[in-house]
Amino acid sequence: MHDLPLTREDCAALDAADPLASFKRRFTLPEGVIYLDGNSLGVLPGATPARLAQVVEQEWGQGLIRSWNTAGWVDFSQRLGNKLAPLIGAAPDTVRVCDSTSVNLFKLLAAALMLRPGRTVIVSEADNFPTDLYIAEGLTALLGQQHQLRLVSADALAGALDDEVAVLLLSHVNYRTGRLHDMAALTAAAHAKGALTLWDLAHSAGAMPVQLHAADADFAVGCGYKYLNGGPGAPAFLYAAPKHHDGLVAPLSGWFGHARPFSFEPTYAPASGVDRLLVGTPPVLSMAALEVGVDLMAEADLASVREKSLRMSALFAGRVRHELAEFGLQPVSPSADALRGSQVCFAHAQAWPMMQALIARGVIGDFRAPDILRFGFTPLYLSYVDVWDAVTHLAEILRSREWDAPQFHQKQKVT
Amino acid sequence: MHDLPLTREDCAALDAADPLASFKRRFTLPEGVIYLDGNSLGVLPGATPARLAQVVEQEWGQGLIRSWNTAGWVDFSQRLGNKLAPLIGAAPDTVRVCDSTSVNLFKLLAAALMLRPGRTVIVSEADNFPTDLYIAEGLTALLGQQHQLRLVSADALAGALDDEVAVLLLSHVNYRTGRLHDMAALTAAAHAKGALTLWDLAHSAGAMPVQLHAADADFAVGCGYKYLNGGPGAPAFLYAAPKHHDGLVAPLSGWFGHARPFSFEPTYAPASGVDRLLVGTPPVLSMAALEVGVDLMAEADLASVREKSLRMSALFAGRVRHELAEFGLQPVSPSADALRGSQVCFAHAQAWPMMQALIARGVIGDFRAPDILRFGFTPLYLSYVDVWDAVTHLAEILRSREWDAPQFHQKQKVT
Repeated sequence: MHDLPLTREDCAALDAADPLASFKRRFTLPEGVIYLDGNSLGVLPGATPARLAQVVEQEWGQGLIRSWNTAGWVDFSQRLGNKLAPLIGAAPDTVRVCDSTSVNLFKLLAAALMLRPGRTVIVSEADNFPTDLYIAEGLTALLGQQHQLRLVSADALAGALDDEVAVLLLSHVNYRTGRLHDMAALTAAAHAKGALTLWDLAHSAGAMPVQLHAADADFAVGCGYKYLNGGPGAPAFLYAAPKHHDGLVAPLSGWFGHARPFSFEPTYAPASGVDRLLVGTPPVLSMAALEVGVDLMAEADLASVREKSLRMSALFAGRVRHELAEFGLQPVSPSADALRGSQVCFAHAQAWPMMQALIARGVIGDFRAPDILRFGFTPLYLSYVDVWDAVTHLAEILRSREWDAPQFHQKQKVT
Repeated sequence: MHDLPLTREDCAALDAADPLASFKRRFTLPEGVIYLDGNSLGVLPGATPARLAQVVEQEWGQGLIRSWNTAGWVDFSQRLGNKLAPLIGAAPDTVRVCDSTSVNLFKLLAAALMLRPGRTVIVSEADNFPTDLYIAEGLTALLGQQHQLRLVSADALAGALDDEVAVLLLSHVNYRTGRLHDMAALTAAAHAKGALTLWDLAHSAGAMPVQLHAADADFAVGCGYKYLNGGPGAPAFLYAAPKHHDGLVAPLSGWFGHARPFSFEPTYAPASGVDRLLVGTPPVLSMAALEVGVDLMAEADLASVREKSLRMSALFAGRVRHELAEFGLQPVSPSADALRGSQVCFAHAQAWPMMQALIARGVIGDFRAPDILRFGFTPLYLSYVDVWDAVTHLAEILRSREWDAPQFHQKQKVT
């Protein structure tokens, strides 16, 4: 554990010495908001509006169809994938930006199963992000229930691997608890049994150094709209290790994954390597916004990002533990740095109204069903003083029972 | 055939009387361009930049995660699908905007096959748009080659239907020839054999009245970036007839297709009806751009759009036939109105350099491999004078052999 600041002044001193402090000016944050939800939707980079206006008004408006060549739209998935690759420890031409995380999961899970014929089990964590489990469920149904999903707790994962297992499907950081898996160790354990690994980096890409190649990971997917600040519903990405490229079968074999899409040949022929996992026309406007976020993240030193994130989450959790013990917030995130992602969460029966009361004060975190208060830490646009102040607001809300006002008990569609 | 204008002055008179003429001012066209490629990428609506700036700067930048509720992002696929539905003759809550055309084809083709267990054949047109065929090929491979693709010519389709056929998969308008299928007749022929129909509306949605419900079509997909002017790589849409809603199985069973996505339940439970075909987080920025295009198209009378389109394409084809016969441009589009979509195409061994020479003059059409010059007609932002002038440019290029200059023979990535 790092030395933690004990006062708001200590936090201000940390901010003054923070090597990442200058990044905050490059994001557009609303006045009066402390945003602890960048792990749900990242903040708008200051450069995004002008870049989008350029793409819309010049590239689309003036260039029209010509921009597929002149503005490089046709290679956008490749170019942006190659920019993203260093952020996740991947080699060039192993990462592509395309589709949604869920669609990319489907593609890679199907491809992985085809690389392990005869093996019938997909192992995952019972508490994995639901869409990962739903996609696996839908794929196994489509394939005629020849495969089954074996769901276990995080601690039982290594023990659940045997020679029936085709794929170990995991989120690197758990969306609810913030628990961080040891990618290299679990990948090695899977490989020892002949299984492949498929990692969902939704809560780690851009939040910490990720080393896909060094960990010998087989496949990965991830999200553009969280720590990469690509905007709501930004395109996702996928990764396939080079050793699998030649054997990859694309279940969603669309024209952008064809070896010669503009020859308009009647028969499918896969593009080389990871390009065959592309499907339809790339969503240029959304990709342009994501590119700004990726470019910005690429300027940051991810080791510094990780260090600041851990210090911020420890500060937040530490103050809650020491100063708010009487209010019964149950910590659900690991306290050990090596096991903790970039968030801290607490369970409480009144988590919903408590979070609404915080949001009303401009401290924006997430409620996650059934009873979780989730606070995400994004070092590029959060200061230590922000984190200090967020806990102060939480303390005031708990001490005054401000959260128990009727308006904070009303439910919403998206929680 | 309509009475065709015989002079440029006749065209100007038609423009002066054109009930759609005022729409042209609502699009942003580059100076000096006659754009005959709206069937590849539609033109920028004038309202799009401001709308996108609002979504980016206000909804994302200021609203942040709160905009899922306050700006209605969470229902965007539904809301925009319901706006689009009247343009294609579909009832409310049968159309959703999501993913790419290719991904939506995969979803609906898989769902259709599951509705016809025991039937093993997918019938399509050998000259269908390649991604439609590739997706069918990939799906049948994934399902263990229990199904086969039966590809026939357009005229042999009805005869290819028998009681082995699960799905008739067709593009309403052929991307290369512009031939328009009779949706109601082919759907009836398919139904008579117990087969389902899946229509790709890429070249008809927004180009003419489409009557999915009246034609008793089972499923459809379509494209947002052609006649709907949604921008490069805009999200696509899908349609499922109400009678199939209860039986729909979503092969890509992502969280946005779950009955209660924000309950984060570990087990998949399909949302009602067509909503279960949603997969991942909706691409908000791209959808906002598409919404402007759909709103604009919804103001136009599609019968008038169709009438003007047919008159423009007849004018173009007629002048080529009468004035440029000596140059050997082979017409490949039907001359009968009832069989022609919103484009006219000609085959010529020198199609590539001819099109490049036209583009250099600002007359933008498409080359389609191997030897097709394709000209699309988009009545909302094209005038009859534009069409007249385009043929005049083509005539000058042919007569002077301007197209034979070396720079027009250079190939590009996207053709």
